[in-house]
Amino acid sequence: MKNYITHAEWSVIEEGFHPAYNEITESLMSLGNGRMGQRGNFEERYSGKSLSGNYVAGVYFPDKTRVGWWKNGYPDYFAKVLNACNWIGIDIRIGDEMLDLAEVEVEEFRRELNMKEGVLYRSAVVKLRSGVRVRLTAERFNSMADDESGAIRYSITLPDTDNEVKITPYLDGTIKNRDANYGQHFWDEVAKETAFAEGYLVLETIENPYKVERFQVATGMAYDLYLDGERIDFDAIPEKREKYVAGNITVKLPSQKELVLVKYGVNLSSANHERSRLLDNAKAYIDRVRKKGYQALKAAHVLAWAEKWERNDIMIDGDVAAQQGIRFNIFHLEQTYTGKDARLNIGPKGFTGEKYGGSTYWDTEAYCIPFYLATADASVARNLLVYRHRHLGKAIDNAAKLGFGYGAALYPMVTMNGEECHNEWEITFEEIHRNGAIAYAIYDYVRYTGDTDYLGTHGLEVLIGISRFWKQRFNWSEDKKAFVMLGVTGPNEYENNVNNNWYTNYIANWTLKYTLSVVDGLQSSDALNEVFEKVRFNYETERGDWEAILAKTHFPYDPERGVFLQQDGFLDKDLLTVDQIADHRPINQNWSWDRILRSCFIKQADVLQGMYFFEEDFTDEQLRKNFDFYEPMTVHESSLSPCVHAILAARIDRPEKAYEMYVRTSRLDLDDYNNDTEDGLHITSMAGTWMSIVKGFAGQRVVGNRLVFKTFVPENWNAYSFRIAFRGTLLQVKVSKEKTNVQRLSGDPLLLEVNGATLTV
Amino acid sequence: MKNYITHAEWSVIEEGFHPAYNEITESLMSLGNGRMGQRGNFEERYSGKSLSGNYVAGVYFPDKTRVGWWKNGYPDYFAKVLNACNWIGIDIRIGDEMLDLAEVEVEEFRRELNMKEGVLYRSAVVKLRSGVRVRLTAERFNSMADDESGAIRYSITLPDTDNEVKITPYLDGTIKNRDANYGQHFWDEVAKETAFAEGYLVLETIENPYKVERFQVATGMAYDLYLDGERIDFDAIPEKREKYVAGNITVKLPSQKELVLVKYGVNLSSANHERSRLLDNAKAYIDRVRKKGYQALKAAHVLAWAEKWERNDIMIDGDVAAQQGIRFNIFHLEQTYTGKDARLNIGPKGFTGEKYGGSTYWDTEAYCIPFYLATADASVARNLLVYRHRHLGKAIDNAAKLGFGYGAALYPMVTMNGEECHNEWEITFEEIHRNGAIAYAIYDYVRYTGDTDYLGTHGLEVLIGISRFWKQRFNWSEDKKAFVMLGVTGPNEYENNVNNNWYTNYIANWTLKYTLSVVDGLQSSDALNEVFEKVRFNYETERGDWEAILAKTHFPYDPERGVFLQQDGFLDKDLLTVDQIADHRPINQNWSWDRILRSCFIKQADVLQGMYFFEEDFTDEQLRKNFDFYEPMTVHESSLSPCVHAILAARIDRPEKAYEMYVRTSRLDLDDYNNDTEDGLHITSMAGTWMSIVKGFAGQRVVGNRLVFKTFVPENWNAYSFRIAFRGTLLQVKVSKEKTNVQRLSGDPLLLEVNGATLTV
Repeated sequence: MKNYITHAEWSVIEEGFHPAYNEITESLMSLGNGRMGQRGNFEERYSGKSLSGNYVAGVYFPDKTRVGWWKNGYPDYFAKVLNACNWIGIDIRIGDEMLDLAEVEVEEFRRELNMKEGVLYRSAVVKLRSGVRVRLTAERFNSMADDESGAIRYSITLPDTDNEVKITPYLDGTIKNRDANYGQHFWDEVAKETAFAEGYLVLETIENPYKVERFQVATGMAYDLYLDGERIDFDAIPEKREKYVAGNITVKLPSQKELVLVKYGVNLSSANHERSRLLDNAKAYIDRVRKKGYQALKAAHVLAWAEKWERNDIMIDGDVAAQQGIRFNIFHLEQTYTGKDARLNIGPKGFTGEKYGGSTYWDTEAYCIPFYLATADASVARNLLVYRHRHLGKAIDNAAKLGFGYGAALYPMVTMNGEECHNEWEITFEEIHRNGAIAYAIYDYVRYTGDTDYLGTHGLEVLIGISRFWKQRFNWSEDKKAFVMLGVTGPNEYENNVNNNWYTNYIANWTLKYTLSVVDGLQSSDALNEVFEKVRFNYETERGDWEAILAKTHFPYDPERGVFLQQDGFLDKDLLTVDQIADHRPINQNWSWDRILRSCFIKQADVLQGMYFFEEDFTDEQLRKNFDFYEPMTVHESSLSPCVHAILAARIDRPEKAYEMYVRTSRLDLDDYNNDTEDGLHITSMAGTWMSIVKGFAGQRVVGNRLVFKTFVPENWNAYSFRIAFRGTLLQVKVSKEKTNVQRLSGDPLLLEVNGATLTV
Repeated sequence: MKNYITHAEWSVIEEGFHPAYNEITESLMSLGNGRMGQRGNFEERYSGKSLSGNYVAGVYFPDKTRVGWWKNGYPDYFAKVLNACNWIGIDIRIGDEMLDLAEVEVEEFRRELNMKEGVLYRSAVVKLRSGVRVRLTAERFNSMADDESGAIRYSITLPDTDNEVKITPYLDGTIKNRDANYGQHFWDEVAKETAFAEGYLVLETIENPYKVERFQVATGMAYDLYLDGERIDFDAIPEKREKYVAGNITVKLPSQKELVLVKYGVNLSSANHERSRLLDNAKAYIDRVRKKGYQALKAAHVLAWAEKWERNDIMIDGDVAAQQGIRFNIFHLEQTYTGKDARLNIGPKGFTGEKYGGSTYWDTEAYCIPFYLATADASVARNLLVYRHRHLGKAIDNAAKLGFGYGAALYPMVTMNGEECHNEWEITFEEIHRNGAIAYAIYDYVRYTGDTDYLGTHGLEVLIGISRFWKQRFNWSEDKKAFVMLGVTGPNEYENNVNNNWYTNYIANWTLKYTLSVVDGLQSSDALNEVFEKVRFNYETERGDWEAILAKTHFPYDPERGVFLQQDGFLDKDLLTVDQIADHRPINQNWSWDRILRSCFIKQADVLQGMYFFEEDFTDEQLRKNFDFYEPMTVHESSLSPCVHAILAARIDRPEKAYEMYVRTSRLDLDDYNNDTEDGLHITSMAGTWMSIVKGFAGQRVVGNRLVFKTFVPENWNAYSFRIAFRGTLLQVKVSKEKTNVQRLSGDPLLLEVNGATLTV
């Protein structure tokens, strides 16, 4: 755990330079606008510890699968988020010396990510090896208002003496992914151009044997120079190399005068532009943003952020660390996904790193959708559902590859384009509960929005594909006289290849039941008939098969303890508790894999995940018994775990436990709990942090068609408030120790239930 | 399945050239002498399909582990059998044309591995592109009498016209392993020398970060030239390049005269020679073999083979294919391991290929030891046991790495030097039954040889280490009120991470029991006290712990069927039989891994492996029930499976089934059943083929101190006979349909039991 970030309500601040933590700070201070983004890298060269990372949404490369031992069914490739052209780079030379913060004496340093504005600020005073002192400031944003562009204001002042300053703004496409399997560069150059104070690079992802689309990205830059606020003329000598363009500017800089370079950058992807138009469009785009000018662009960007915060901010009174934590989580979620494009999804690292690859895990459905449902227009969550609907064909192909037929769909564990690209058999082939989360998200969306039309147009088709998979994946056990599901991995990945994982069996059963209820709900509508026709649904046989499973599914259970068993045989384990192995944690770093597997310790909520999803199916007594059995064995070594425990703890009146779990999730990255923030942030679990407050402390639910709250305030907070949208109405919810106040900010009046009382706002 | 090899009793013959099958033929016709060997490659250049492979026993390289996803506990490297210096190469140019069988018209071709002699013969008549016709013959052996050397007699005749012939015998160390993880060359050059008609290369394995010994191998060659039987003078122009030495000879060859090059080769490893002496020793060695001359060397080699066949031949009357099959298996076993060196073991591919790497799997203990016990001096099997004793310290380290303590030993799944080098978690960490096979081999050896002294000097120490591992690996299940063993993979690798694999639980229990019986047997001898002291054995506590486990271990069982269950929950599977999925076989090529895992289908004997090991613990009735339950589900997709089924089928009077299983195992490679002979031969399973006849058809066992036979003759054979050594006595066993005759060839009289009758021979 690190503790070098200043606690502040609206900002992430590094006071003084911490080179050893630079990659962590780079992750924390990443910028993005849903379309492009980059880590909090310096603009000028830096030879110290750094992961230079620029990313363009939806652009990836299918890197050949690398495994020790091949298993039938493995996908051919693993889709890597591509480290793309660096557009922020500005080389600075004072006299003959390259400015490089790893090589100078840093006298003053401050880096601040202002989350209210979405702007990264930096200021420093350094002494070069030559003895020359330099003051630099930099500010940068990726425009939320104009989302294929970003801008930088970079300034140099020489406090002591005049000197020659060489400035080289550049675009650099010679980057590599750090985790490239075979050390390859993933980009080819298509075109490059320079003009006065402008530069363009068009890159294309290298060929691949998997018939995966090759992306082109056109990156453009333009720059202007100002001296003490006045725009000045300058010469820029163009420089071109393989995948690199730059302009070289030399300025005699008098001491104490501020020299400012404004650099505009654009990134246009072939996903959104015709290839033949990419370069021209980039030029026109650059021209447009340059004409607007830095201050106008920034103002529009800050305004866009203000509108976001207007809707989704959570205010905490009395706990600055918690306040910073929740805003940090909301900020990065908003940077990662804006919901405008149904082809995009929420990558595990967003624009903050390139580890893991792929963009879509079940995290989206299980964790992110509730956040977007409550804080954004319903179209945002809908787009996330449509994304899966678009991939249904590939999910059916994926299931067929594993031996399933008749329209059964298995969605991939991780994907970019609908194709599976994970390659651990115990996860790729067995962690099939992901399918259930995709069905659940449809239910969750319809319940929250009331948009039942979605079922007929999209939802049912997906539900039938998933239900067909469950039907085939269950098998009848003559021994148990019940349907069983063998060889699965549940949400708790510290178990592999188990039989009858309670969570998976439960969500599979629920899917069958829900699909049938959707069919019933649509009665004999045209929409229903169209879907039935399209998927060749055999009503009698399929309904019969599904009902047979519903009638007799094996759910492992211990009647003595009154707990559902995570899987068959769970009680054979040595049932220890986490406090008995305090010295060994985190076990994923200290124990061999087989020891982890054999132990009772739980990486993330599994049975409890099911009870959270389907809480109305269980009594408080059941919930308490299961929570008390599993919580003490849970090591929470997944970022997705604490929030579920926080919500359930709130439900069963364990406020201290709920708060403890909230703290774990909210400052996970800010305090680098798991020693891995340097790889990038845990984006999807950030939605869990939001849920811990809204669904946990404020007890938000939807029951029937009604929004329900059951609130409490953690002991060391005075109060908290948040905004939430429900069916077109925006509410402000303020919870203090004395009372809970719900105010309607816009939209129609709503009937609510707050702490047991029914009221209309 | 291929069928291009001529059926012959003593030879493997390719009539006519089959270039598409060349890599298969190269595997089949591999030569070795326990110390060095190579595939049946051509001496002259060949640009067609070929895997050029030369190997030196015990020489390997630790190649960095490559996995998709790292799991804690994985070994750092995978030890690869090293493709070593090619010493057989002879380039032939006729006029300006390089002789290359891929580029010429092959008019006649015959390749024969004579197994009686251990010599590879080849003859061909080809027409070059220039129109010149060439007759070539080649013969080659790796001397069984002088095991760091080999020799080649290579002849050229021009039937039609005189021509200039250029002959270039060479040594080539520029080879690569085909499966190198990162495409590296594994050899550095240390020294090279040429002298008239001689050449030497000293190579060293490249540096590695794992502190694994770097090997040096000195390879030497010398050559002489003969024309029509007369030794002739010649010039040899030396040629040296990086890791390459050669001599270039030009001869005007009159038509119809036979030009013969005799090439001698030696391979001396730093494992057996001081590094500083390697080159000098190689020179002296070359000098010695050259002085002996080709015919004398060959005669000594053939004699050594005759002595081997004298002891281990199995003769089958009435079935040439079966006769060829069993000799092929015995031949390759003898080539792979001679038992002279306790540092060596039986690699899965011997000297026939480089796939899999490592040299030692549990195959050695479970399959090979019975063969060597019966066909070789007891010292051979003893050396195989001592090999594991030497690795005990590393087995204890290996267990510690996985979290076990107090002297618990876990032998590696595969190793070269005692360190684990496998990297699939489900095997590396979980296929721990291998530990039991190592204990069982000690029992098997002592039972067969009567050498109880071995227990005090070596065996007990190993048994205690293994027993301590089992003790810690069992855990008490409060639920079952029994000791259970969770998270294992049994011999049937089509199941992973199961609980209470019956075989593993059984052999673990048996180890504890046997170790205690050995302790009891040694009473309070000095040997016992020394061992106890050395391993700090706490007699009271440890015995108590072990007995507690022995008193209450969970063995999954189905009372209704009267069968032991392969693992907990086995009966939940869809219990199909192999004939129901005939179209899908082999499932390891046609099914996804998860489908294989979920199915009931069994890769290799698992419960039945245990019943084979411990047959005296079970009634025939039990055996029959279990056989009838498991046999129909067994797909035998491991080469180690059919032999166990053959033996058990014989035991329960199912001669047809026993014969069917024998055929599968004996011609596995000759007929390329599994489409993988080109990678090399299945060496360890060859011992299983031998067992199918001796332990299966002839029902050989040791009961008490007595050798027992219970014989039958497969229907389409007339008779068979074999030789078997038991406690210093060599017996000839002849089994015909009428009677079984046992004759003593040497040694003391023995009391035997043959088909129920007790007799002395």
